[in-house]
Amino acid sequence: MSRYAIGIDYGTLSGRAVLVNVQTGEEVASSVYEYPHAVMEKELPGGAKLGHDWALQDPHDYLEVLEHTVPQIMRESGVSPQEVIGIGTDFTSCTMIPVYRDGTPLCFREEYRNTPHAYAKLWKHHAAQPMATKLNEIAAARKEKWLANYGGKISSEWAIPKLMQILEEAPEIYDEIDRWIEGADWIVWQLTGRETRNSCTAGYKEIWNKGTGYPSKEFFKALDPRMENVVEEKLGLEILPLGTRAGGLTAEMAQKMGLLEGTAVAVGIIDAHVCVPAVGIDGPAKMLAIMGTSTCHIMMGETEVQVPGMCGVVADGVMPGYFGYEAGQSCVGDHFAWFIDNCLPASYYEQAKAQGMNIHKFLREKAQKQKPGQSGLLALDWWNGNRSVLVDADLSGVMIGMTLATRPEEIYRALIEATAYGTREIVENYRRNGVPVEEFYASGGISQKDPMAMQIYADVLNMPIRIAGSDQGPALGAAIFGAVAAGAAAGGYDDVFEAARVMGKVKQTAYEPIPENVAVYDKLFAEYVKLHDYFGRGENNVLKRLKALKIEQS
Amino acid sequence: MSRYAIGIDYGTLSGRAVLVNVQTGEEVASSVYEYPHAVMEKELPGGAKLGHDWALQDPHDYLEVLEHTVPQIMRESGVSPQEVIGIGTDFTSCTMIPVYRDGTPLCFREEYRNTPHAYAKLWKHHAAQPMATKLNEIAAARKEKWLANYGGKISSEWAIPKLMQILEEAPEIYDEIDRWIEGADWIVWQLTGRETRNSCTAGYKEIWNKGTGYPSKEFFKALDPRMENVVEEKLGLEILPLGTRAGGLTAEMAQKMGLLEGTAVAVGIIDAHVCVPAVGIDGPAKMLAIMGTSTCHIMMGETEVQVPGMCGVVADGVMPGYFGYEAGQSCVGDHFAWFIDNCLPASYYEQAKAQGMNIHKFLREKAQKQKPGQSGLLALDWWNGNRSVLVDADLSGVMIGMTLATRPEEIYRALIEATAYGTREIVENYRRNGVPVEEFYASGGISQKDPMAMQIYADVLNMPIRIAGSDQGPALGAAIFGAVAAGAAAGGYDDVFEAARVMGKVKQTAYEPIPENVAVYDKLFAEYVKLHDYFGRGENNVLKRLKALKIEQS
Repeated sequence: MSRYAIGIDYGTLSGRAVLVNVQTGEEVASSVYEYPHAVMEKELPGGAKLGHDWALQDPHDYLEVLEHTVPQIMRESGVSPQEVIGIGTDFTSCTMIPVYRDGTPLCFREEYRNTPHAYAKLWKHHAAQPMATKLNEIAAARKEKWLANYGGKISSEWAIPKLMQILEEAPEIYDEIDRWIEGADWIVWQLTGRETRNSCTAGYKEIWNKGTGYPSKEFFKALDPRMENVVEEKLGLEILPLGTRAGGLTAEMAQKMGLLEGTAVAVGIIDAHVCVPAVGIDGPAKMLAIMGTSTCHIMMGETEVQVPGMCGVVADGVMPGYFGYEAGQSCVGDHFAWFIDNCLPASYYEQAKAQGMNIHKFLREKAQKQKPGQSGLLALDWWNGNRSVLVDADLSGVMIGMTLATRPEEIYRALIEATAYGTREIVENYRRNGVPVEEFYASGGISQKDPMAMQIYADVLNMPIRIAGSDQGPALGAAIFGAVAAGAAAGGYDDVFEAARVMGKVKQTAYEPIPENVAVYDKLFAEYVKLHDYFGRGENNVLKRLKALKIEQS
Repeated sequence: MSRYAIGIDYGTLSGRAVLVNVQTGEEVASSVYEYPHAVMEKELPGGAKLGHDWALQDPHDYLEVLEHTVPQIMRESGVSPQEVIGIGTDFTSCTMIPVYRDGTPLCFREEYRNTPHAYAKLWKHHAAQPMATKLNEIAAARKEKWLANYGGKISSEWAIPKLMQILEEAPEIYDEIDRWIEGADWIVWQLTGRETRNSCTAGYKEIWNKGTGYPSKEFFKALDPRMENVVEEKLGLEILPLGTRAGGLTAEMAQKMGLLEGTAVAVGIIDAHVCVPAVGIDGPAKMLAIMGTSTCHIMMGETEVQVPGMCGVVADGVMPGYFGYEAGQSCVGDHFAWFIDNCLPASYYEQAKAQGMNIHKFLREKAQKQKPGQSGLLALDWWNGNRSVLVDADLSGVMIGMTLATRPEEIYRALIEATAYGTREIVENYRRNGVPVEEFYASGGISQKDPMAMQIYADVLNMPIRIAGSDQGPALGAAIFGAVAAGAAAGGYDDVFEAARVMGKVKQTAYEPIPENVAVYDKLFAEYVKLHDYFGRGENNVLKRLKALKIEQS
């Protein structure tokens, strides 16, 4: 009998289930379910208006994913419930749900159907920025040691600022909340009937540290006296390492999903971090870049180092037993899309159309004929600020070297190169701080669709780049954790690293650095660093002054 | 009886004659004649191939302008030949013609009809760059004092490098040449039957100085022993100040043009410099910017100062009795055209089309809604190098401050602002070096068509900008010199300044600086200067290194 694990990936607009053969890693069936409520940014279905920068979801949608996708993959594959040994899930993060003690979201109660603060706050809900700013000021003033674990700044996307927003704007809702929980943990609770918290979201988004726990009562009291005991009152105290079995499937859920009661369920994990085992990474110093509209760089290390400019270092934050490191670039695919929307001349659209070609592909065909350095252009990839290693949202884009002969495809390529330099700066920043980076993997849309960009990355980094073998990386990674939650005795794995080696996959061929390109990009990267430091480290703060003036004049 | 002067403007592709009332400045008739041979850049009509960067003309075309346009304006206006008291001409420069002692161009001889070096070398013939480089090296090594009068560099466009090219590539043609003469002087010779040279082209393009004359025999010998006596052998020794009567119209030319024999003809002048009296400028410290694809800044001063980074300072170089100062920006209208050709998205074309609007106008409508500083963008206007004040063709464009919200109209406006900052840098550079700049005038296409740009210039410079009242500025300026050549006794003027005041014109309304914009642009200009010096004065020579790499990789 074959053994299978199910991975369920909760994205921003839909959930996806994949059925994976535990012995071979083969993905035998998959199914997607789009959230009926999608993202609510303007108003609730009941009519309540939402403010600027709000982004809510209805957790009913998350449950419907289970009922629609899992029966579908079972039917499609013909696999029997007995053959499914484990379930893993991953979730967007930090997506937070206010719930009662029994796990029921506040918004499920009729009386709160039209109350915005009763809903799930999606990761990209940014309306808690004032609270995040306040939190950071207080933490800095108090010299909180944990602040450096997050590159010196807590994001408005994270759990505590989002909870502060409820306390300030709707204290009666705050009082009603028994548990303030990540979607990643809530869905596991629904599957198993048991509340758990996972080390990944707790460490990256809830300011929890394996060694020192949460911030102190004094700190929370300084935020707001009503929050002094927030940890005991609303958060979770039992934090489980990734790969742990959270529990077994409840009878009710088993029935709805067409699976067996008691099927092992893994603790939750963030949708980015779960991609690491999906590419077969089984140890430290192997960086995975998940490249989409923005890029997230995830890696494991043997020790806990406070590397300046990273997004977080978390024990058991990626796979158990290692410290998970995360860094990020806030503008990658967005960068190229901006160019195409705002800078690409009509003549190029016409030519692409005449050749029946997608505009990205058309541009790439032109751009890939260029040699490194041939355009004379150099850009800093800060169109959306800099997440790592400068952690500065007030920075903006820079491009130099334009002449009257500069063509659109040259600008396009320069923007791609700029993001590759940004990645190299992140890699070198780790190395400078004693965290080795020895291998490089890429997943996400760009890794699959843009061979030119990937070759540029290989040449700029002077490292071979291995590409994710599955285009359903998060779901595959979740299934790997499902197989580990089941354990070897049930036909799965006791060791997550072994599971990753067997079930994770990369494509057969890697992008290998081309020595003559490496030599040129070494020179260009030196120029990038010089400008990066000039504009980004205080020598000339013109970008900040321009932004201030822009705000003043708007 | 009314009195009229004729101004004839020799441009790059055509010649234009204008008939002007000497007492009122009214332009009563005009006529254009396009050169039948236009610019020859690939081959001669006889089939001889031209090299890269060549640009030749056939002087027959210049003569045909006289025969076609002057009879036409006389017919059209009904003015009698008796009423025409003087003729002035202006010419592109440095456009050089190899001629025999009697003024006949070599290329008029049947044996040379298919010999490239026998033709007129148009100003934009750039194939003499190696010769210019050699000349500059030798001049610098010999510490020639005159070099600083030209911002430290002699252009490949100018007379001596162009002559060196003939000597090196076709010594037999060099030997055949009796006179090496500007088109500006040759056409006057044809009109009057007498060879003269004018102080403007001699000073700006032939390295002649009123006080010290031409460079020494030793210098020319160092260039090439065969050039030791080039001044006596090929150039002109009698250099006349602007406004001088070169002679009277010959009987033959009078007959062809339908004018009276003996009609006063003024000495020649460059087509840019001649615009100064056309806007009524009558003294020093009044700068005229002639704004087209590039911009030329012309002004008079009371003293001779070697201002770093200007294109030239020449006694009697603009109007008699003052020192003429010239500076330039190599990329202005070209800058905006580059943007529209290479960066403007299809959606904008579609919207402009839907509104039945010219694309420049459409963009301007969007751009003029922005307040200064509101885009957060700042650019350095070096897409075609920097002519003044850095005199560095190896510099290239810089733009900073882009975000994902940056729109095309913001980039467009930033490019316009960049050229205004470049102009302010030129103005301030004069002031720093003790040459006052007190008034600002603009002529050329942009001054007539782009009110938004002109307002930006007024705000950036914090000076009112007066706009040329005629769109045939060069021809009007030439007519003013024609009236001066005729003299007061004949109904013209003895004083060119008086003639300029009466016949020159600006539009009724000037662009006045708006104080709140001035305050913001002062801040932005300070940022411009900081980046200008950082990238342009050696602190970070990244632009030069990028260019070197670009050449290496091409």
